[in-house]
Amino acid sequence: MHQNYSSKLLEEAVEEFSSLPGIGRKTALRLVLYLLKQDNEIVERFGNTVLKMKKEILHCRICHNISDTEMCNICSDNYRDHTTVCVVENIRDVMSIENTQQYSGIYHVLGGIISPIDGIGPADLTIDSLVEKAANNSIREVILALSTTMEGDTTNFYIYKKLKDTPINVTTLARGVAIGDDLEYADEVTLGRSILHRTRFEDTFRS
Amino acid sequence: MHQNYSSKLLEEAVEEFSSLPGIGRKTALRLVLYLLKQDNEIVERFGNTVLKMKKEILHCRICHNISDTEMCNICSDNYRDHTTVCVVENIRDVMSIENTQQYSGIYHVLGGIISPIDGIGPADLTIDSLVEKAANNSIREVILALSTTMEGDTTNFYIYKKLKDTPINVTTLARGVAIGDDLEYADEVTLGRSILHRTRFEDTFRS
Repeated sequence: MHQNYSSKLLEEAVEEFSSLPGIGRKTALRLVLYLLKQDNEIVERFGNTVLKMKKEILHCRICHNISDTEMCNICSDNYRDHTTVCVVENIRDVMSIENTQQYSGIYHVLGGIISPIDGIGPADLTIDSLVEKAANNSIREVILALSTTMEGDTTNFYIYKKLKDTPINVTTLARGVAIGDDLEYADEVTLGRSILHRTRFEDTFRS
Repeated sequence: MHQNYSSKLLEEAVEEFSSLPGIGRKTALRLVLYLLKQDNEIVERFGNTVLKMKKEILHCRICHNISDTEMCNICSDNYRDHTTVCVVENIRDVMSIENTQQYSGIYHVLGGIISPIDGIGPADLTIDSLVEKAANNSIREVILALSTTMEGDTTNFYIYKKLKDTPINVTTLARGVAIGDDLEYADEVTLGRSILHRTRFEDTFRS
């Protein structure tokens, strides 16, 4: 339904907010009216922060993670294990894994996964840069941590093929029934994988 | 939980978005990463539109509705009935009533309702300006279209007291069972009001 906005400026702002994913016109209007009620400085800070972020943010030249410097703080951390590289789809996955505090290697952010339907091929991702790094002989293990969708599997396989003639160990995340989940509610494929890839009981004490 | 952002700029942008109502940190991150993926022009337009809106938007000096000009397009429309003023809480209510296409009078936007808990008193609203307008003898009817909460009722009564010694007709929105609603699901107060304020059957043909 067409809304009658009493102000063109308001309408344009609503238009901008509703172009964001998951934000409809009603929510957009609520956000815009909220901003309109705030003090000038608050709205200026909001607008300028968005502009500044887009203008100044960089991508780490090693792992392609978002960074404020040419090399991100993970890649420039000498206490981390630079021989282990975890391949993820995007920066959100980096955050998720970092939050587990179980990983001390470095990352490689692909920037997406191979998806012919969305027109994303290997050349649109940072796979070449991963293969280049692999050729330097400084990497011992590549952990594939992509999602278990058809696109994720395709990408996994593509990367595996590129690396299989190198001495690099290519591994993938363990899949299985989540901790705390009831067996009867787990899907068959996951439960099947849990049984096939069962681990030594003593190993569950390690953290 | 504290997230580890690899970029301070990103973190600041997420901070700004999550200060908006109804936007949590996860959603904020999703929105920021979306903007980061867009072309420079799109993000610049987004930021600048927000800044421009806040800087240039005005409030109509007659009805206090949001406007790009000193007098909004409703107040400056000579085809509308300027003797009937509909009092609403905010600009969203103006839009809702305009969308019904059943009202041809003008509006008066209070900018809120009296709510001692939130520290909003009559002086924070545009009630004085309404009373001033009423003193000009140009208004014949004031329609109170506030919500039926305790705050709305308080505000209604406050305005009514201010206007009751003038020749102005103070009316309020009809309340009753919504069109299409089953009687058995209507609450008792609403259904009771529907019976008390029943209308002549012939009148339901008018639009």
